[in-house]
Amino acid sequence: MKSSDAAVVPAPDAKGGLETIRVIGETLRLVTDKRLELYDLTERVADILKRHDVKEGMVLLSSLHTTLALFVNEWQTALLHDVKAMLDKVVNPHDGWRHDDPEYSDCDRRNAHSHLQATLLGHALSFQVARGKLVLGRFQAIIAAELDGPRNRDLAVQIIGR
Amino acid sequence: MKSSDAAVVPAPDAKGGLETIRVIGETLRLVTDKRLELYDLTERVADILKRHDVKEGMVLLSSLHTTLALFVNEWQTALLHDVKAMLDKVVNPHDGWRHDDPEYSDCDRRNAHSHLQATLLGHALSFQVARGKLVLGRFQAIIAAELDGPRNRDLAVQIIGR
Amino acid sequence: MKSSDAAVVPAPDAKGGLETIRVIGETLRLVTDKRLELYDLTERVADILKRHDVKEGMVLLSSLHTTLALFVNEWQTALLHDVKAMLDKVVNPHDGWRHDDPEYSDCDRRNAHSHLQATLLGHALSFQVARGKLVLGRFQAIIAAELDGPRNRDLAVQIIGR
Repeated sequence: MKSSDAAVVPAPDAKGGLETIRVIGETLRLVTDKRLELYDLTERVADILKRHDVKEGMVLLSSLHTTLALFVNEWQTALLHDVKAMLDKVVNPHDGWRHDDPEYSDCDRRNAHSHLQATLLGHALSFQVARGKLVLGRFQAIIAAELDGPRNRDLAVQIIGR
Repeated sequence: MKSSDAAVVPAPDAKGGLETIRVIGETLRLVTDKRLELYDLTERVADILKRHDVKEGMVLLSSLHTTLALFVNEWQTALLHDVKAMLDKVVNPHDGWRHDDPEYSDCDRRNAHSHLQATLLGHALSFQVARGKLVLGRFQAIIAAELDGPRNRDLAVQIIGR
Repeated sequence: MKSSDAAVVPAPDAKGGLETIRVIGETLRLVTDKRLELYDLTERVADILKRHDVKEGMVLLSSLHTTLALFVNEWQTALLHDVKAMLDKVVNPHDGWRHDDPEYSDCDRRNAHSHLQATLLGHALSFQVARGKLVLGRFQAIIAAELDGPRNRDLAVQIIGR
């Protein structure tokens, strides 16, 4: 493991308080159309950021649902198929979960696996903003995983920066 | 996938530096009582936020332990049972891990699976704060997963905002 | 579950705008030397923080790659072996993934499992900074998981604070 640290983003220091940190909140609505599906949110998050003209800071993207998860990876058709297959391999929908059993649960959606898959993927993502743009690698996309659709979904988008 | 973006949270712009961002840190102590158990921290985190009267910003909640993880999902008894069952299915405690083998490891807690499950769930969570409240969906709870208790656990709670 | 909340970190309140929040960005280069390997980044991230002398705030560490993931856990040789074994158990590299099949994919790296393992671990981590230091538990290390090396990898390090 060799290493070199290089500053690539200018560090905007204090300038007498003329530049104040802004805290901006929005909601992003996602209308999903399948039980299990992935959606590329990269451009939509980038558009919200652009509209507010924040140059340096961060973006926090949060799912407001327990069966809609978020992750970052490559947006490639074959791989998206694999992500969905992997989710159902790691958490088998037909594994006799209590949340799906009327004896234990008042939920009749039989979506235990959707909740469980969501806990493994995570509900929120943070991104750096530098020079007015999301800091993402060349192949990185912001992906929402609908695990129990179709539904109308809301994601909270927060921008903190200047 | 249809879409509409709507600003739901007022964006408090710079007001001549009169409102300065605050950075607040606290520790939340969790005393766990089982080897594998889940704890609802939602109200406790909300109470800390309330006490500091931050209106717009974010909260970072971090486990300070390698076998205590955090995630967001629904607080429903049947589902909590499923989460615990799922963790032991995805990472089988009796799978011959080296961390549990005195030939390879000086740890005698036989808790390899606890560490491994923690890496899959994650050690920290970020939340948006808007109008003085944690931004959470109707069914979302902040849940701590004790994976190798019972123990006294500390979580760092940080609030950044105004 | 007993509880006690105790403020352990002084809360630096507004001081008339004299202390302005800084937003700092750097890139951390990691040169990996194996197909599947773990790297301890704790000291390197701590060094970057130290260099910028931020006392209270947060650090966001982001992988800029789709097959390099990040997590926090203990840096112990036996456990590191287990983490690698666990990743290949949870997502079997030889499970007939489409991303590895020339009929479906133009990627010839046969690294579907690397992408899938990355989605489960996560691409970014947030850390609290208090009294000039990363807030980490005694056994917590910041670990990068190279899932498809060897390669030159870049991680974005952002510090927000004062």
